[in-house]
Amino acid sequence: MNHGSIIHIIGRILQIEALFLALPLLVSIIYGEDDFWAFLIVFIACIVPGSLISLKKPGKSAFYAREGFVMVALGWLVMSVMGCLPFVINGDIPDFTNAFFETVSGFTTTGSSILTDVEALSHASLFWRSLTHWIGGMGVFVFLLAVMPMAGAQDMHLMRSESPGPDVGKLVPKLKNTAKLLYQLYFALTLLLFILLLFSGMDVFEALTVSFGTAGTGGFAIKNTSIAGCSELQQVIIGVFMILFGINFNFYFFLTFGKSIKSALQMEEVRVYLLIVLASTGLIMINARHHFVSLFDAFNKSFFQVASIITTTGFATADFDLWPTASKTILVMLMFVGACAGSTGGGIKVSRIVILFKSFHRELVRFIHPRLIKNIHSSGRVISRDTVSGVKMYLAAYVIIYMVSVFIVSFNDLDIVSTFTAVSAAMNNIGPGLASVGPTGNFSHFSLISKWVLMFDMLAGRLELYPMLLLFAPATWRSK
Amino acid sequence: MNHGSIIHIIGRILQIEALFLALPLLVSIIYGEDDFWAFLIVFIACIVPGSLISLKKPGKSAFYAREGFVMVALGWLVMSVMGCLPFVINGDIPDFTNAFFETVSGFTTTGSSILTDVEALSHASLFWRSLTHWIGGMGVFVFLLAVMPMAGAQDMHLMRSESPGPDVGKLVPKLKNTAKLLYQLYFALTLLLFILLLFSGMDVFEALTVSFGTAGTGGFAIKNTSIAGCSELQQVIIGVFMILFGINFNFYFFLTFGKSIKSALQMEEVRVYLLIVLASTGLIMINARHHFVSLFDAFNKSFFQVASIITTTGFATADFDLWPTASKTILVMLMFVGACAGSTGGGIKVSRIVILFKSFHRELVRFIHPRLIKNIHSSGRVISRDTVSGVKMYLAAYVIIYMVSVFIVSFNDLDIVSTFTAVSAAMNNIGPGLASVGPTGNFSHFSLISKWVLMFDMLAGRLELYPMLLLFAPATWRSK
Repeated sequence: MNHGSIIHIIGRILQIEALFLALPLLVSIIYGEDDFWAFLIVFIACIVPGSLISLKKPGKSAFYAREGFVMVALGWLVMSVMGCLPFVINGDIPDFTNAFFETVSGFTTTGSSILTDVEALSHASLFWRSLTHWIGGMGVFVFLLAVMPMAGAQDMHLMRSESPGPDVGKLVPKLKNTAKLLYQLYFALTLLLFILLLFSGMDVFEALTVSFGTAGTGGFAIKNTSIAGCSELQQVIIGVFMILFGINFNFYFFLTFGKSIKSALQMEEVRVYLLIVLASTGLIMINARHHFVSLFDAFNKSFFQVASIITTTGFATADFDLWPTASKTILVMLMFVGACAGSTGGGIKVSRIVILFKSFHRELVRFIHPRLIKNIHSSGRVISRDTVSGVKMYLAAYVIIYMVSVFIVSFNDLDIVSTFTAVSAAMNNIGPGLASVGPTGNFSHFSLISKWVLMFDMLAGRLELYPMLLLFAPATWRSK
Repeated sequence: MNHGSIIHIIGRILQIEALFLALPLLVSIIYGEDDFWAFLIVFIACIVPGSLISLKKPGKSAFYAREGFVMVALGWLVMSVMGCLPFVINGDIPDFTNAFFETVSGFTTTGSSILTDVEALSHASLFWRSLTHWIGGMGVFVFLLAVMPMAGAQDMHLMRSESPGPDVGKLVPKLKNTAKLLYQLYFALTLLLFILLLFSGMDVFEALTVSFGTAGTGGFAIKNTSIAGCSELQQVIIGVFMILFGINFNFYFFLTFGKSIKSALQMEEVRVYLLIVLASTGLIMINARHHFVSLFDAFNKSFFQVASIITTTGFATADFDLWPTASKTILVMLMFVGACAGSTGGGIKVSRIVILFKSFHRELVRFIHPRLIKNIHSSGRVISRDTVSGVKMYLAAYVIIYMVSVFIVSFNDLDIVSTFTAVSAAMNNIGPGLASVGPTGNFSHFSLISKWVLMFDMLAGRLELYPMLLLFAPATWRSK
């Protein structure tokens, strides 16, 4: 294990966190709130040790996949520990576990909250809470790769460990430029959303925080009623942008920098994703029709909730826990499907679901024509055997972690629907589940053990399982 | 597709069904009930066409895996259609779908019932209903292989298609002898249970039907209160025998005919299975302690329900739907784990779960030591790559079928727990689920479409997915 490199990277992460913490500090000054000090203390607590640690260059810079995984997992943990301190210090969330839960939920873009009254928070707290979504959405290591001079080829391991999807690749030959491009696209789309929300009549502060929550597919809102109080126009804008941020960013790369729009339109994952959104919206419009007042209302509410769940954002404009069973079942399934790989959304990812279905189909064909050798294609290229087998392993690992988590949380003795959907919501980085963790509920009534399990699940879900598993595997630390 | 062979085998299956139908016919005569005619008509409707069809030898006898799958799926469907006719004709279950549901539930050893009052059935109907469990438990094709002269090597495809487990093999060099041995062990164990129940004071008719239901891990009882009315001694006997019938029959082969008891004790699957039973029983005894009157009562009720669910039998002595969430969660998980491969139980099978966990562990080790090549071992031998990959494909196929089924059944607009657990209960061949399909409920309130989906799931679960999928795949029938 290359400890030098790991410590060096942690230092870098602390520096970047300080950079981001400067923003709520500014907000605090602008609004003249007295929790200025809380953010300043944590800013210093990040920038000083971070700079000291990263001054020392690591002895050997070579590292492997396992170091990449461990760095990312550890980086996210450190970032969350430091990130929750302002809430503890300014007294908005005095309990450490709760503050940590809220921050992990923020960075992992989950959006599950232990708060019963978010409107009681200071502007700086609300801003920081939403900003964690934006940072976590595209990823802090991707940001690190984009802005800081890094060692070289092995940085790919960092990118792979943090970016979602079965098959992470570079858009352009240099990794640094790929990371830059991703953040440029991310920033531009967020800015566009912010401007549209301003034009729709939203005030600057809400437009900014909602943009962060939407861009990161997070789901923290600054109102107790989530997005239900917004105008219908604003709901449509947010709905459309949730869908946009759930699309594989390669799509935007092809559209803007790439040579052809054809490559963008060929992306099977994006087409399947949009098809699922349309089909689910249509089905819910029909199935839950008694809950809507007009055809537009039916479309708006169904589309918003589908967009919110499949992109794993978790904003709500309706209490879907009251909808009929089929509508709820569709939403529960969308929780697991999730958004596209290479987007800011969570879940299993549409590309993995596509590969699973194709692999399933190939298996049946193999029984009928045992001698036929058939590759799995997607978007016009062959999916490697390793990727297909990796996807199946991922599903198995997913089921195992899900079941173990449900098992532990079940001893909390909440009802069975809350138990199963709380874990689903955490692991897929959604936010709300059903029953007591539905759109009008929250996670404050969970036991300490349950909260820690759910935090693990949020991080495991956001980092795609293996980084968190390896971080806690004793063998990782024993090996040379 | 070798149509000749398929038709020939269907004829044989009809002959065997006639053979078994002679037994309820006899029961009807003994009890002097007037539904004698119903069973006689169906007996003739099986024996005459069956004999005529199987008179004609198939042109070419060679067939492949796909024909094996199709034969088994078709055989089970034909058997269920004919098997439900006595209920329709004698008026015990006049509606065809309901009668078919009950019979599919019987043969697949599920035990889900659409009846609200089983005690209203004739003795012959009750006997036949329980006998279907016994036939389906070990399998009608295994019986066919044991008693009838068959073509040769390709019969292995039939055995593989009907017998549960990731890696079906022969116990002795000749397949016919393997099938015979299995039925001898099955018969001997059933007889032993029957005798013990008689000694415990149960009357002959109940002892016989309960023995059938236990041996096949089915779950149909002849009382409305299932097994709750039996004495505690009887409950313990039935509980222990459910566990015994959930053990891989290779275990008994090693104990009786095999050279060494060591081989039996080395079977990892059996050890893990017993460990799960003990651990689950212990956890439920503690978690649901307020529902029991004494320590023995706690053990007896917990053990019985655990045994009933993990072996996918579905008998009940307590209404576990009233137990705390953790106890219910454990039972829901056991539904999917299921019994051992090569037993009469359903579910995913313990051996597959063991392989999944080992594969999961190997994946983590691979990240830590990328160059290490590590085989998966079980019971002292290497599990082949194909078997491991097959198990992961099986899990993926399982999840896909489960999700599609839940999706369709959700439009029935029952509550979400009933919807999810009804499909779980059907696909894993358990019987009861939770909420409205809990131990005190039944399946009579499901819509026609839901019933057909659940029937498909029962057959898919019993025949391990692929036979049913291939039967309905158009490509199966197009291919030469």
